[in-house]
Amino acid sequence: MATAMQHATGSNAAAADDVEMVEASELRRRNRPRGDGGAVAAAEEDEDEAASVERAFADQRVPSWREQLTVRAFVASFFLATMFSVIVMKLNLTVGIIPSLNVSAGLLSFFFVRLWTAAMEKVGLLRQPFTRQENTVIQTCVVAAYGISFSGGFGNYLLAMSDRIASQADEANNPQNIKNPHLGWIIGFLLLVSFIGLFGLVPLRKIMIIDYKLTYPSGTATAYLINGFHTPHGAKIAVKQVKKLGLFFVLSFFWGFFQWFYTATDTCGFNQFPSLGLQAYQNRFYFDFSPTYVGVGMICPHIVNVSVLLGGILSWGIMWSLIAKKRGIWFSADLADTSLHGMQGYRVFIAIALILGDGLYNFLKMLILTAWSLRSQHKKSSASTLPISDDEQSNGTAAISYDEERRNELFLKDQIPWYIAYGGYAAVAAVSIGTVPQIFPQLKWYQILVAYIVAPILAFCNAYGTGLTDWSLVTTYGKLAIFAFGAWTGASHGGVLAGLAACGVMMSIVSTAADLMQDFKTGYLTLASPRSMFISQVIGTAMGCVIAPCVFWLFYKAFDNIGISGSEYPAPNAAIFRSMAILGVDGFSSLPKNCLTLCYIFFVGAIVVNLIRDLVPKKVSNFIPIPMAMAIPFYIGSYFAIDMFIGTVILFVWQKLDRAKSETFAPAVASGLICGDGLWVLPQSVLALAKVKPPICMKFLSRGMNDKVDAFITTLS
Amino acid sequence: MATAMQHATGSNAAAADDVEMVEASELRRRNRPRGDGGAVAAAEEDEDEAASVERAFADQRVPSWREQLTVRAFVASFFLATMFSVIVMKLNLTVGIIPSLNVSAGLLSFFFVRLWTAAMEKVGLLRQPFTRQENTVIQTCVVAAYGISFSGGFGNYLLAMSDRIASQADEANNPQNIKNPHLGWIIGFLLLVSFIGLFGLVPLRKIMIIDYKLTYPSGTATAYLINGFHTPHGAKIAVKQVKKLGLFFVLSFFWGFFQWFYTATDTCGFNQFPSLGLQAYQNRFYFDFSPTYVGVGMICPHIVNVSVLLGGILSWGIMWSLIAKKRGIWFSADLADTSLHGMQGYRVFIAIALILGDGLYNFLKMLILTAWSLRSQHKKSSASTLPISDDEQSNGTAAISYDEERRNELFLKDQIPWYIAYGGYAAVAAVSIGTVPQIFPQLKWYQILVAYIVAPILAFCNAYGTGLTDWSLVTTYGKLAIFAFGAWTGASHGGVLAGLAACGVMMSIVSTAADLMQDFKTGYLTLASPRSMFISQVIGTAMGCVIAPCVFWLFYKAFDNIGISGSEYPAPNAAIFRSMAILGVDGFSSLPKNCLTLCYIFFVGAIVVNLIRDLVPKKVSNFIPIPMAMAIPFYIGSYFAIDMFIGTVILFVWQKLDRAKSETFAPAVASGLICGDGLWVLPQSVLALAKVKPPICMKFLSRGMNDKVDAFITTLS
Repeated sequence: MATAMQHATGSNAAAADDVEMVEASELRRRNRPRGDGGAVAAAEEDEDEAASVERAFADQRVPSWREQLTVRAFVASFFLATMFSVIVMKLNLTVGIIPSLNVSAGLLSFFFVRLWTAAMEKVGLLRQPFTRQENTVIQTCVVAAYGISFSGGFGNYLLAMSDRIASQADEANNPQNIKNPHLGWIIGFLLLVSFIGLFGLVPLRKIMIIDYKLTYPSGTATAYLINGFHTPHGAKIAVKQVKKLGLFFVLSFFWGFFQWFYTATDTCGFNQFPSLGLQAYQNRFYFDFSPTYVGVGMICPHIVNVSVLLGGILSWGIMWSLIAKKRGIWFSADLADTSLHGMQGYRVFIAIALILGDGLYNFLKMLILTAWSLRSQHKKSSASTLPISDDEQSNGTAAISYDEERRNELFLKDQIPWYIAYGGYAAVAAVSIGTVPQIFPQLKWYQILVAYIVAPILAFCNAYGTGLTDWSLVTTYGKLAIFAFGAWTGASHGGVLAGLAACGVMMSIVSTAADLMQDFKTGYLTLASPRSMFISQVIGTAMGCVIAPCVFWLFYKAFDNIGISGSEYPAPNAAIFRSMAILGVDGFSSLPKNCLTLCYIFFVGAIVVNLIRDLVPKKVSNFIPIPMAMAIPFYIGSYFAIDMFIGTVILFVWQKLDRAKSETFAPAVASGLICGDGLWVLPQSVLALAKVKPPICMKFLSRGMNDKVDAFITTLS
Repeated sequence: MATAMQHATGSNAAAADDVEMVEASELRRRNRPRGDGGAVAAAEEDEDEAASVERAFADQRVPSWREQLTVRAFVASFFLATMFSVIVMKLNLTVGIIPSLNVSAGLLSFFFVRLWTAAMEKVGLLRQPFTRQENTVIQTCVVAAYGISFSGGFGNYLLAMSDRIASQADEANNPQNIKNPHLGWIIGFLLLVSFIGLFGLVPLRKIMIIDYKLTYPSGTATAYLINGFHTPHGAKIAVKQVKKLGLFFVLSFFWGFFQWFYTATDTCGFNQFPSLGLQAYQNRFYFDFSPTYVGVGMICPHIVNVSVLLGGILSWGIMWSLIAKKRGIWFSADLADTSLHGMQGYRVFIAIALILGDGLYNFLKMLILTAWSLRSQHKKSSASTLPISDDEQSNGTAAISYDEERRNELFLKDQIPWYIAYGGYAAVAAVSIGTVPQIFPQLKWYQILVAYIVAPILAFCNAYGTGLTDWSLVTTYGKLAIFAFGAWTGASHGGVLAGLAACGVMMSIVSTAADLMQDFKTGYLTLASPRSMFISQVIGTAMGCVIAPCVFWLFYKAFDNIGISGSEYPAPNAAIFRSMAILGVDGFSSLPKNCLTLCYIFFVGAIVVNLIRDLVPKKVSNFIPIPMAMAIPFYIGSYFAIDMFIGTVILFVWQKLDRAKSETFAPAVASGLICGDGLWVLPQSVLALAKVKPPICMKFLSRGMNDKVDAFITTLS
């Protein structure tokens, strides 16, 4: 689920791609000795894993699927899901780049339940020990729940329907194309569309996990993390990691608290700090002291961070100032900077061109890969020549190892009846077809029906692609839906809103499907029952459908600048999604002069750069920037790019100084930074709702202005 | 020299006392096995010293005294002396607490000359290897030179003569009692008075070093540092320490640079950051982001930092706000807060009472100790029963060790003829008597003559006391002179200025005398020739007499708020010294109501607390605050106390986490912080002189004020 998220938003597709690719190769390295027969110990500096994971657990009874589903697991899941929902929501609404939070979810769920069981044990009330299966159940539930915060579109399609975003463009700024968020219909809509992906792909799990042996790098990584925790040595390292996470969590939380005091108004405080000078600040180049994005920078691979910064330099550093000089020539000088017919138009549409170019390239690449891989699968029954998953597959012909045997046995033990899957799909689809048009009258019932017929195919494509590359193209499928359904409905019938709503339906299905398979892989590797996994996923999704809208509502009510360009919560993807919907319905009529030409250049550029990245050797491609990562600062500015770049520099130096330590602890430190700052949002919004305002304004004035202000203040006293 | 400095300023006497006491006990621990015969290796975690230091160096020829005095040594000394002068001057003018910079001077001199010799060696031009004797010469020269920055009174008596300080009080604010600083007369005056201490005590070196075997903890510590550097393993640790120092030097320097951009005016920037809220800020409680005082806090012992903070809480937190409520009752409500007849009077005079009480107690204690120790010395020829130096002395009766034999031999080899010493003293005294009254007409020639007759006795007392306890009471002798000569001259004849000038004469003599002996001890332990040491000290003093006034002049010209209460450079001791001089001449007439009562209470309190500290066991006394350390925030506020407290917390946590590492590296980190921030003053003042002003103002406004200012700014645009 988290994987789907990371890959879904603009730059994230690329970002997480590389994150997970790193993990994947790491995992492959780890996997090899195991596949070879199980005699060679993986030479991790700090770990001494046995070659066979399952032999280490051989004397532990695997609990039944019912035992795996404990009350404490869901209580822990609820709290963690709330925390991560807040964090993801904040990321959604600020910059829209969401890093993989799997590791922190894993660490924290282990930590909380361990704490709980240790306490229970002390008072003699522990009836059931904490197993890795239970841990997997929590992990699955948490990821399913907080995933809704992303796939629910609070940072993109859903917010894009609101009047706040609509008022930023002249087109489609009418009641027909506006639906303001409200807690009631959001929860209803999410409940309708979020389960369909689960039912749709459940029957395919054996094929994808056991027969095709798809990699699912994130799911595998999580499984090894959980397996690691439950060996004695792994638990020791986990405790150390949790300590580091906790330290940076607290630091980051209190830094957020400290910052708060100095933000009497929007223009005050550390996130307005012109750390590179006033000139650079006006072009949105500054370090905004946000631990979140420093943490994100520490998790994302270096090339992503560098790409983001390059994008910022290219756009705000060079292009926008050049285009600004054409004011009055290319576009009317009377237009505000935030008008889509002026500066903002260039910013948004060039970013869209980059995102679409990159997205299209990767979508086609994925389709071709999938088709090719499926053909190979069918040809050679189980062995495959596909290079991406060679390690797993090459063992297919060899004798099945002990680990594999045991995993297959347990994975096939608890079946989910076919009638639950298909029945569930049909029932949910029927209800949706009946009720979704009542929420969005612009979307007709037959459109939903079509969507639900096409969706399983796309869901399979995405789940399969994720299995191969760990790259879930959720928002790409969503964007397809925007254009398809928007054009179908037409401008005069509320096509913009119909497109956005269809985008929501599609994103939910595609995202949950990929997550489901990812989680099955985790369950497969930790001997968790598919049945308990499925139930956990259903419960998690249900939780998410309630938690995510509530969290969004909290933000929406507490901060009145959600979605406003240039504010603390610009929610860049909301404006981008709406602009895309307008583009899909109205065509290119709304673009300012020369903007279309520039868009073509960047669209083609994105494809060319991607092509080069794939054709040159890995060594060289590691130094070629990723177009999608470059697009985000085009719209919102470079401040978060500077944060992320600082994160990357910290990680780089750390890696140079002590590679082993940085690999063990950097994700924990980064998670701590992200979670601490993210959680501070909770008390912050409570304070905002209670109308408690910060007492001090930290203001930055030029010397000239300061002299005037000082003179003014003197006249006051 | 540095020792003299630390102990001279108010709280420093106490501060350094404990710093050096820690070092002293550490040294005694190290000395023991050596004294016992030289067989037991000192079990330092990271060092593996041989039991006999000199055996390790036995195969190295000791260079002749002429060879020890190299040109490169004095070139290096010049640069280091300039750097440390800037740092000490900044400390003088901001808070007046000066930590021991011996370690950084030692580290950096080793580093620079090593760099130089390594470079020379590469190009084949190295004629003379870098020896520990040369290192000692540099160390001595640097300390002698930058010591003038302190004993020259730029932060106390000298600045106290200026009209800026005089205008803060009504008394003695007349031309007769004012002499504004000027480069010319300051250099002349310093040259006249700074050498007399050197000549006065040179003949006594054999008695104090070899016969009395005085400890001189700072000198001994420096010697062991230098000896350590020149063993292969020591050099390796030194390189690591230098790296840490360099890192924090750079960080601290660039932090200073960064801060500069946001200080368009005095009321802007990080050192006005109300980090504890606006209310606390108005009572001068805030963290001012100064790495210098964080570093100082890391060097000073915990109890000193805690005492300073307690002093701040007691004064600005409690007393001043209570006294402020008596405005209109105890003193006229019309008086400005900076008037000595109002609030400022309480602040200054209660601080003076504390300082004098503490100073008097320690002066008497030292006199008694000295007298007792001298009696014992004479009684038993060389053995002594004095507890303080028991380790050294108890070995006097035992067979002389190899180390001691070799040290004695070399210490006695190069003699300094008695006629140079006495002749020099007589000559310098004669010139001074003739010329000092021309600089200060208020001071008559016979007064100087009397001073020069009494001075050697006091100088001996101070040098002996420093040898015993490492506590040089420079400013205490200076304060004695203020009262004695002020009263002698009388109010009507410019007694205030005469007192301050006499204070300068006395401080110079007493301070250089103690430093001289301290350095001889270092030379004794590193086999440096007394003759080269003496010459190095003379050259260093001459350097200091030129460098220190120039550096002061740079500050005075570059920053126009030197000595202004509440500004960045309040130079608290200047106002305190002048107030003392006024007190000495005019009596208590200038005090506001009830101030004298409070002064008595604090005077007695200081003595009582000191008495308790000395009477209770060491374990308990470690937790009793030091009155002199408490006095400084009384006058200038608690912001630096918060810095120092943060330093102490960092050190405390570090010690808990890794004691060995913190002991090796904390002084290097602290020195880096102090030196980097200190050196930034140089470019900063150059910028100020070139009228380059920072471009941005970081301002802190209350929310209400901010709203008004925002409204005002809107009207402007």
